Amino acid sequence: SGRKVLIVYAHQEPKSLNGSLKRIAVEELSKQGCSVTVSDLYAMQFEPRATRNDIVGSLHNSEEFNYGVETWEAYKRGSLSNDVIEEQKKVQEADLLIFQFPLYWFSMPAIMKGWMDRVLVQGFAHEFPNCYDSGLLKNKLALFSFTTGGSREMYAKGGISGDIRYLLWPMQHGIMHFCGVKVLAPHICFSPEYVSEEKRKEMLIAWAQRLKTLWKEEPINCSPEWYFK
Amino acid sequence: SGRKVLIVYAHQEPKSLNGSLKRIAVEELSKQGCSVTVSDLYAMQFEPRATRNDIVGSLHNSEEFNYGVETWEAYKRGSLSNDVIEEQKKVQEADLLIFQFPLYWFSMPAIMKGWMDRVLVQGFAHEFPNCYDSGLLKNKLALFSFTTGGSREMYAKGGISGDIRYLLWPMQHGIMHFCGVKVLAPHICFSPEYVSEEKRKEMLIAWAQRLKTLWKEEPINCSPEWYFK
Repeated sequence: SGRKVLIVYAHQEPKSLNGSLKRIAVEELSKQGCSVTVSDLYAMQFEPRATRNDIVGSLHNSEEFNYGVETWEAYKRGSLSNDVIEEQKKVQEADLLIFQFPLYWFSMPAIMKGWMDRVLVQGFAHEFPNCYDSGLLKNKLALFSFTTGGSREMYAKGGISGDIRYLLWPMQHGIMHFCGVKVLAPHICFSPEYVSEEKRKEMLIAWAQRLKTLWKEEPINCSPEWYFK
Repeated sequence: SGRKVLIVYAHQEPKSLNGSLKRIAVEELSKQGCSVTVSDLYAMQFEPRATRNDIVGSLHNSEEFNYGVETWEAYKRGSLSNDVIEEQKKVQEADLLIFQFPLYWFSMPAIMKGWMDRVLVQGFAHEFPNCYDSGLLKNKLALFSFTTGGSREMYAKGGISGDIRYLLWPMQHGIMHFCGVKVLAPHICFSPEYVSEEKRKEMLIAWAQRLKTLWKEEPINCSPEWYFK
C-alpha cells in the first residue's frame, strides 16, 4: 500500500509474546507493501531521562534549566541530540505509529515513557495553540498494542483494577490526541502468562487477522465518553 | 513526631518551583521532628530501564528473560542490584512517600516511572493475592505533588484536557493503592510558568501550610467514584 509504519517496541526478550506480536506486525504489514521501521528501545539502549544532554551546545537560559523551553528552542535551531532527531524523523515519515509493550503499572514501561518525553517536543509535535485536533502530528494514526498481567475480569468495569479504558486516557488522549494523532482501538492481550500455549497462539493469530484490515478501521472518538461513559 | 518521610523528587533544576516545593517539604517536615530522606533522581542519575542488569548473578530462566519473574526471584534471594535495594530500604522505613515532579504527558517523568517499575517489585511491594487493600506496603501513605503546564481550566471536568483526577488513576490507584499504600489528596500547582512571581510565592506558602497539618489528614477513598464520579 506504500504506507509507512513505525513500531515503537519495548520488551527485553525477543522470545516473549510482545516480541512475537512485533514480529507479526512487521511481517503482515510488509506483506501488504507497507514500509515498516522498528525502534527496539531496549536493544537501542534508548535513553529515557530528560536531561541537559538532549541539547547540543549552549543553552537558551543556562541560569535556570527548563527542559520544555530548552528542547523547544533546540528543536527550532536543529540542536537536539542525535538520538532524538533520529526518532523524530521516523515519526515524521510514518502514517501509523504502533506502540508494542507489556503494561507496567497501568502504563507503559519507563523506557517508552522516556521516548514520549524526549521525542514529542514542543515545536515538533505540538506548539500552542496547535494541540489536540490541531496538533502538529495530525493525519497520523496511533495504536497501543500491549499485554497485561491482570486478567480481563480484573480490568472489567466493576473489576478491582477498573475498566481498562481508564488507564488508556493518559496515553491515548493525553499524549497522542494532544499531538493531533488519531487513535485506533487498542489491541490488548490479557495475562498471556497465565493462559495455555494454545491460547497464546490464538492471540497471535487474532493480531495478524486484525492487521489485514487495519487500514479500513475508523479511529475511536477520543473524548471522555469513550473512556468513562 | 518521629515519623519517616521519603521524598522521591524528579526535577533537573534546583531553582525550579519543584525544587522549592521539595526544599520546603524537607524544611517543614524536619521542623516537625520527622526524619526526611530525599531520592533526587536526576542528581542520582537513577536508571529508569528495567533490564537484566537489575539481577546480580545468574538468572532463574536464562532461556527466556521475564523481568517480573526474575526480579521477584532475585528479591527473594537478595540479589537485586544495589541501587534498587537502597530504594527499597528507604521505602520500607518510610511512613509517608511524597512524589514531587512536573507532570510530563499526563503522567510522571520517565525517570520516576522507572523508579516505580524497578523498585516496587513483586515480593517486596505486592505478592498475589496481597495487592490493593492487602498490598505489602500497607500502613504507609503516599502523596503526589506536581506542577502542570496546562491551566486549571484545561484540567476542569468539561475542559479540553479532562478532569485532572482522570490522570491520577494510574498513579494513585494503579501503583500506590495496588501496593496497599493509602493515598492523601494530591497537591497540584497549575501552570506555575504562566503566573506571576507573586502567585508562585503563594503556591509555596500554601504547600508549607498544608504540611503543618498533614498528619491529621484522612486518605482519599481510592475507588473509581473519586476519579470518575
